[in-house]
Amino acid sequence: MRQQVSVITLGISDLERSRRFYVEGFGWEPVFQNEEIIFYQMNGFVLGTWLAASLEADMQRTGLARPGAFALAHNVGTRDEVQPLLEHLSKFGGRILKAATEPSHGGLSGYVADPDDHAWEIAWNPAWLISPEGLVTFGV
Amino acid sequence: MRQQVSVITLGISDLERSRRFYVEGFGWEPVFQNEEIIFYQMNGFVLGTWLAASLEADMQRTGLARPGAFALAHNVGTRDEVQPLLEHLSKFGGRILKAATEPSHGGLSGYVADPDDHAWEIAWNPAWLISPEGLVTFGV
Repeated sequence: MRQQVSVITLGISDLERSRRFYVEGFGWEPVFQNEEIIFYQMNGFVLGTWLAASLEADMQRTGLARPGAFALAHNVGTRDEVQPLLEHLSKFGGRILKAATEPSHGGLSGYVADPDDHAWEIAWNPAWLISPEGLVTFGV
Repeated sequence: MRQQVSVITLGISDLERSRRFYVEGFGWEPVFQNEEIIFYQMNGFVLGTWLAASLEADMQRTGLARPGAFALAHNVGTRDEVQPLLEHLSKFGGRILKAATEPSHGGLSGYVADPDDHAWEIAWNPAWLISPEGLVTFGV
């Protein structure tokens, strides 16, 4: 089976509030939007932000909780970008969970929650290659 | 800001139980493993399965809940692969949430929860391109 994820879908409460964080905060451009979902074309897969009630209906399951036991990470190119990006995102509905600190494995990282309490790690990790197209390769 | 996710980290309770689902169920190969985390190199990013307590410590946040308000999707190449993959994964610690059905936008999809209750959609969607390298492009 191919090691492939096609979509990450985040359950959200308010489409415009979430859009502000991703479009104005991260500066990302939607590839599709309707009244209940926004898709962003990412590096080899698609990120979706979908009203949580619709996500629950689609998966025929209720009681999806926030914050869930997961995190997404966005890696930046230099050490000096980590803390400023955390602070920038906090102006667009984000909430800083952990300021930039040095993890034991090196680099620098912090965490910010999006307006729906989904956690984003903002990291600089010189051991991980990022191609010009944004494709990320694990490294140690 | 580049539209890039470097890592999806799932909080788990039992490394070997989770490993069985991903390695024996999906057939994916870890790129790194130690006593608390396993990384898989995916299509342009990295998937991590990390003991939830360590993830909470790293983000300085407690109370991460499962199931969280999110879903991951894995797309297959043909319609006939969807239901068999759901059933296959259910033999390696997965639990089928929704059998393969036809969504209104076309294709075929169902959901299975991994052993830690993280939801995976297994989908066939002929409108979404998947490159030979496994890179997924949004389409309608």
